[in-house]
Amino acid sequence: MAVYTDVSDEALAAFLTEYDLGGLVAFRGIAEGVENSNFSLRTTRGDYILTLYERRVDPADLPWFLGLMRHLAAHGITCPLPVPGLDGQALRVLCGRAAAVTSFLPGIWPRRVRQAHCAPLGAALARMHLAGAGYAPVRANALGPQAWPPLLDRCRDRADTVQPGLAQELDDAARTVLGAWPGDLPAGHIHADLFPDNVFFLDGRLSGLIDFYFACTDTLAYDVAICLNAWCFGPDGSFDAGRARALLGGYASIRPLTGAERAALPVLAQGAALRFLLTRLFDWLHTQQGALVTPKDPIEYLHRLRFHRGVEDVRQYGL
Amino acid sequence: MAVYTDVSDEALAAFLTEYDLGGLVAFRGIAEGVENSNFSLRTTRGDYILTLYERRVDPADLPWFLGLMRHLAAHGITCPLPVPGLDGQALRVLCGRAAAVTSFLPGIWPRRVRQAHCAPLGAALARMHLAGAGYAPVRANALGPQAWPPLLDRCRDRADTVQPGLAQELDDAARTVLGAWPGDLPAGHIHADLFPDNVFFLDGRLSGLIDFYFACTDTLAYDVAICLNAWCFGPDGSFDAGRARALLGGYASIRPLTGAERAALPVLAQGAALRFLLTRLFDWLHTQQGALVTPKDPIEYLHRLRFHRGVEDVRQYGL
Repeated sequence: MAVYTDVSDEALAAFLTEYDLGGLVAFRGIAEGVENSNFSLRTTRGDYILTLYERRVDPADLPWFLGLMRHLAAHGITCPLPVPGLDGQALRVLCGRAAAVTSFLPGIWPRRVRQAHCAPLGAALARMHLAGAGYAPVRANALGPQAWPPLLDRCRDRADTVQPGLAQELDDAARTVLGAWPGDLPAGHIHADLFPDNVFFLDGRLSGLIDFYFACTDTLAYDVAICLNAWCFGPDGSFDAGRARALLGGYASIRPLTGAERAALPVLAQGAALRFLLTRLFDWLHTQQGALVTPKDPIEYLHRLRFHRGVEDVRQYGL
Repeated sequence: MAVYTDVSDEALAAFLTEYDLGGLVAFRGIAEGVENSNFSLRTTRGDYILTLYERRVDPADLPWFLGLMRHLAAHGITCPLPVPGLDGQALRVLCGRAAAVTSFLPGIWPRRVRQAHCAPLGAALARMHLAGAGYAPVRANALGPQAWPPLLDRCRDRADTVQPGLAQELDDAARTVLGAWPGDLPAGHIHADLFPDNVFFLDGRLSGLIDFYFACTDTLAYDVAICLNAWCFGPDGSFDAGRARALLGGYASIRPLTGAERAALPVLAQGAALRFLLTRLFDWLHTQQGALVTPKDPIEYLHRLRFHRGVEDVRQYGL
């Protein structure tokens, strides 16, 4: 679930007086997302999502996120559009937390990924990359390569309790990946967390992208590599080259990858696997009993990391 | 939260072909309720709630619950109305679980109870009791007084780990309450779980009652006693006679309590406190680590039980 903060009916009523959204009709916590508290909010004016920003989001980053969403929405990307209050400000405070109301997007995220999802996903990712080009502010990737060694340092002592030999394997992988990390590929604003639960489909078509709270300014092809990890492995953990071909083909139909981007895909994919492996491992080792959100098994991403380390030719990605 | 079972987009699409509800527009898990998995479902036809019935609900009881909701809705009670499939059946199967679609109710449940909620609550409870009279099937209360001694037997060994002396205190209370339990008060269909999160308000008026999955055929005034426990204690655990007066007054404005019902209120309220204390204690002692739902602290209800055991005159309830 993800409702860390409950909002009283009185606090909500007072909050809504700061908007021109009409009267309250319904309000329910949404059992999705893991970082923030999300509520579906219906007023006499329409449907909205209310988000309260919780622990992992730095309030200082919120104007950047909301600005990106506004920019992308204005440039043809279907994503949540921040709704300003009467004073023009979209970023507000509710129950002691930063909060924002955004537009409601129709659609449902694919619980079981099929190859048919992957070409539209790739195309939408490329469109987002192109649309982001005019948004001037930058945000460094707080979970980029420079963040991995300190994360690993905080996991190393107990990593082998999750799987024997894991600390050594992660040290080896981090050394290899960081040593080979490409520094000069095309950059821009990336989503950085475009997992299936952040992509809505409706009637077989991609209907929207959500949850831009890991977005940052980084290597565009790294976003593609994150999607290769998040969308192109089957339930049994095996790589699905058909999905990868569809994803990369959809992406290239809008924004062709350069030769250098194609060549870097294996190391970018290793880096993406390592990033999610490390954050999941950290959460696994540091989550308190009784936490609202069950930590995700990090080992799934160890298998993905191993796959990418074994890739000798980018044609294995269906290219 | 309460999404124990995730529903794939494909399973949902197939399920919706069994209904005349138009096309899927949106689908999100609801982070409320503790017994079943609930989803908000929007189709081109409107808004609905999809419920998958989980562990604690006996599938054999579901036709009774859905029938009661249909009956109450047809008799002026605003409650979820089961939506039948194309074959006329409202009770169906989805993801291996019994499932039903019901109508969407506007409103928001009061996170902080105020006295102003209590008279409308009492009136709605009484209206529900009267409206239920024409529904012929009966369902015994599986958590009624006969269920308390076996529940206590399964908690007694470890009760004192929660609070020293608890086992003895519960034995004493159960003996007193069961010995004084009234057997001949007016009976009918009761909600049996009308806590604030099951009552919606909109613009200061009660807009609906939900979650009839503990409903049963039992002493009507016992339902009032459950509400006295659930609504009439402040955040500090103290009894709020003003709320109780409002609740009982609202109830009596629709269905006056008989003299015998009034006289029995203290023992009924003790029984209601004992029922929630015992089920919470059982969950507290038996919930696995990592469970999706954090068990509720049973001790809150020990304090309520003690209050009701100390009531010497029903005027203490504001009567």
